[in-house]
Amino acid sequence: MTFSYSQLFAFTEAVFRSIGCPEEDATLATETLLSADLRGVDSHGVARLVGYVRLWEAGRINAAPRVGVTYETPSTAVVDGDGGLGLVVGPKAMRVAIEKAGQVGTGWVSVKNSNHFGIAGYHAMLPLAHDMIGVAMTNASPLVAPTYSLDRLLGTNPIAVAVPAGEQPDFVADMATTTAANGKLEIAQRKGTPLPEGWAQTADGQPSTDANAVKNGGALLPLGGATGSHKGYALGSIVDIFSAVLSGANYGPWVPPFVAFLQPSANPVGQGLGHFFGAMRVDAFRPADEFKAHMDNWISTFRNAQAVEGKKVLIPGDPEREMAAHRIMDGIPLLDAVVKDLEGVGAKFGVKL
Amino acid sequence: MTFSYSQLFAFTEAVFRSIGCPEEDATLATETLLSADLRGVDSHGVARLVGYVRLWEAGRINAAPRVGVTYETPSTAVVDGDGGLGLVVGPKAMRVAIEKAGQVGTGWVSVKNSNHFGIAGYHAMLPLAHDMIGVAMTNASPLVAPTYSLDRLLGTNPIAVAVPAGEQPDFVADMATTTAANGKLEIAQRKGTPLPEGWAQTADGQPSTDANAVKNGGALLPLGGATGSHKGYALGSIVDIFSAVLSGANYGPWVPPFVAFLQPSANPVGQGLGHFFGAMRVDAFRPADEFKAHMDNWISTFRNAQAVEGKKVLIPGDPEREMAAHRIMDGIPLLDAVVKDLEGVGAKFGVKL
Repeated sequence: MTFSYSQLFAFTEAVFRSIGCPEEDATLATETLLSADLRGVDSHGVARLVGYVRLWEAGRINAAPRVGVTYETPSTAVVDGDGGLGLVVGPKAMRVAIEKAGQVGTGWVSVKNSNHFGIAGYHAMLPLAHDMIGVAMTNASPLVAPTYSLDRLLGTNPIAVAVPAGEQPDFVADMATTTAANGKLEIAQRKGTPLPEGWAQTADGQPSTDANAVKNGGALLPLGGATGSHKGYALGSIVDIFSAVLSGANYGPWVPPFVAFLQPSANPVGQGLGHFFGAMRVDAFRPADEFKAHMDNWISTFRNAQAVEGKKVLIPGDPEREMAAHRIMDGIPLLDAVVKDLEGVGAKFGVKL
Repeated sequence: MTFSYSQLFAFTEAVFRSIGCPEEDATLATETLLSADLRGVDSHGVARLVGYVRLWEAGRINAAPRVGVTYETPSTAVVDGDGGLGLVVGPKAMRVAIEKAGQVGTGWVSVKNSNHFGIAGYHAMLPLAHDMIGVAMTNASPLVAPTYSLDRLLGTNPIAVAVPAGEQPDFVADMATTTAANGKLEIAQRKGTPLPEGWAQTADGQPSTDANAVKNGGALLPLGGATGSHKGYALGSIVDIFSAVLSGANYGPWVPPFVAFLQPSANPVGQGLGHFFGAMRVDAFRPADEFKAHMDNWISTFRNAQAVEGKKVLIPGDPEREMAAHRIMDGIPLLDAVVKDLEGVGAKFGVKL
C-alpha cells in the first residue's frame, strides 16, 4: 500500500504524542524518522516506529527528555540525551554544533545517553542550510565482528558527510561501515535469497552466504568484506570511539540493543548509546561562493565521467534525492507487514493510519 | 641489504640538504619520510626519495618554502605550502591545528600548494603527545575510478586517525580509501602474481586480476571493490573535498601526478595538492584520565575477543608499531633496486649511503 507523506506524518506524530513526547519533540522525531522513508532507506523509517514504541514500553526511552550540554569548550560539547529518542536528541545536539561553528568556525558534539537516531544522512544535512559541511556518526547494536573475531563487538556504525554546492545538488554521503546494512540481510531473509560474498560470517567465523547467518550466531562483516575487512573495522571503531568513548556512552559490546526483547548489559560502561556530530562553516576556510563554484565543478566533472556501458557515474546522495523527489509527489509504499504493524501500534493509542 | 635507521637518516637528511632544504626542514622531512620505513610501509618511505628529487629537478618542488596561514578563524586555518615538500608542509600545518585545539578545543587545517606528504599515519600521530586525537588526509595522483567510471578521477586518498590511550598503546588507523594501495600492485608486478579480485579494473571497466591493469589504462577500485565500491568512492571523495575544495588546491583529475615524467594539468583548478588535518583535545570532551581509562578498556576488550582459530584480533596500529620496534633495533631492509636508486641519488650530490 502507498501512503502520502502527510498521512504518515500525521499518524507518526500522533503516536509520538501518545507515548508522551512534547508537541515540538513529536514533530521533530517524525521529521527525522520519515526522512528515511522519503530517501528510500525503508529499513530505517516508519517501519521502525513499532520498535521505538516497544523500547518505550520496556522503559528504555524517556519520551520527555531534558537534552542538555554537560561540558563544553568554544568548539566542542558533550550532550546528555537524558535517555530520549535519538530522533530528537540528534537534531538538538547538531544545533549545538552549528551554533559553535557560527562562532569559532567549527563545532563538534559527542552525545551520550541517547537511542537509535534514524538515518545518519538526515543529521549530516542539517548544517547545509547554514553553508556548513555536516558530519554525523552513531554507534549501534553489536552485530559486527572485527577482522578475525568471532565475537560481535561493533554496530553497523554509519558515517555521513554532507557538503553544500551551488547550482548542483548537495553532496550527501551516508554509509554503514559494514559491507551491507542489516536491513539488506532482512530483505534477503524475506525473499529467501542467498547473500553476496563478503557480507556475513557464521558463528565459527567462516564466510557465509546464508541470509540467516547473523540470526544464527554469526556476524556482519566490516566494509571490505573477505578481502580487506580491516579497513571497515578501523572505520567502525573510529565511529564507536568518537560517539561513545569521547562522550561517556556505551561502546563496543555494551551498546544497548535496539530490539526490546534483548536486555541491555547489566554492567554498562557508560550511558545509553552515543553519536558524534560536526559542523564546519565553509567560509571558515574560503569564501562560500568560491567554495560552492568549485564544488559545482567537482560534481559536474565526476557526474560527466565516461562510464561503463549502460551505467552512469553518480554523486553520493543522487539516488536518495531522486527517490525523495518522487515519493513526496507519489507517496511512500509500505509492505503489508509494516502496515499491519503500524495499525497495531495505532490501535493501542486510538490513532488511525 | 639492511641499514640502520641512523644510517638512512643521515643519508636522507644530507640529500634533502643538497637540494636546498634548510637544516630544520631537512631533518623534519627525513623524520616524516622514514617513519614509513620504520612502520613497514615500504612503498612510502626512502624508496620514494628518488621520486622527490626528480620532482625537484623538474622544478615542481620548492625546497625552501615559506609555509604560512593565509586565512583563519579560532578553530580553522588554510595553510599555503608554497610548493614545498608535503613531508615538511604537513607537520607545520598540523602544528597550527594543535595550537588551535589548545585554545578552543579543536583545530582543523586545510592545506593547498603542497606535494606528497608520506604516510598519513605519521601526521595523525603528532597530536597524541598533547593528549589529542589526530586526523590526517591527503588527496593524491588520480589512479582510481569512481563506481561505474572508466575515467581515473581520485587518488588512493588515505584517512588516518590516531587516538591516545593510557596503559595500552595508542589506536592508529591509517588506510587508503581503495581496496589496495598502488604499492601493493607494484609488488604483484615485481613478483608476477595475479591480484585478488576487487582491486583493479581494465581500461574498459571490466574487473581484472592483472597486476598491470592500472599501467595499461585501467584503474584502482575504491574500498569495497566489486561488491560495494560506492562506499570507498564516497570516502575518497570526502578526502578530496576536505583536502582541496576547502583549501584551494587541485582536486579530482587535476591533482598533480607524483611521477616527474607526467606533466601536471596545463589548466589547474587550484594550487598543488591538498591535505586536511585535525586535532581534538580529549579533555575538550571529558577528563583525559577518564577518556584514556575507557580507551584502555575498549582496546583490551577488542584485543581479547574470541578469534578464528590460529588468528588474533588486532587493534589498528598494532602491526606497524611492532614493526617499528623491530626495525629500530634490527635495521631496515631495502630491496637491491632501491639501494641502487639511492646510490644513484647520492652520487649526484656526493653523499654516500
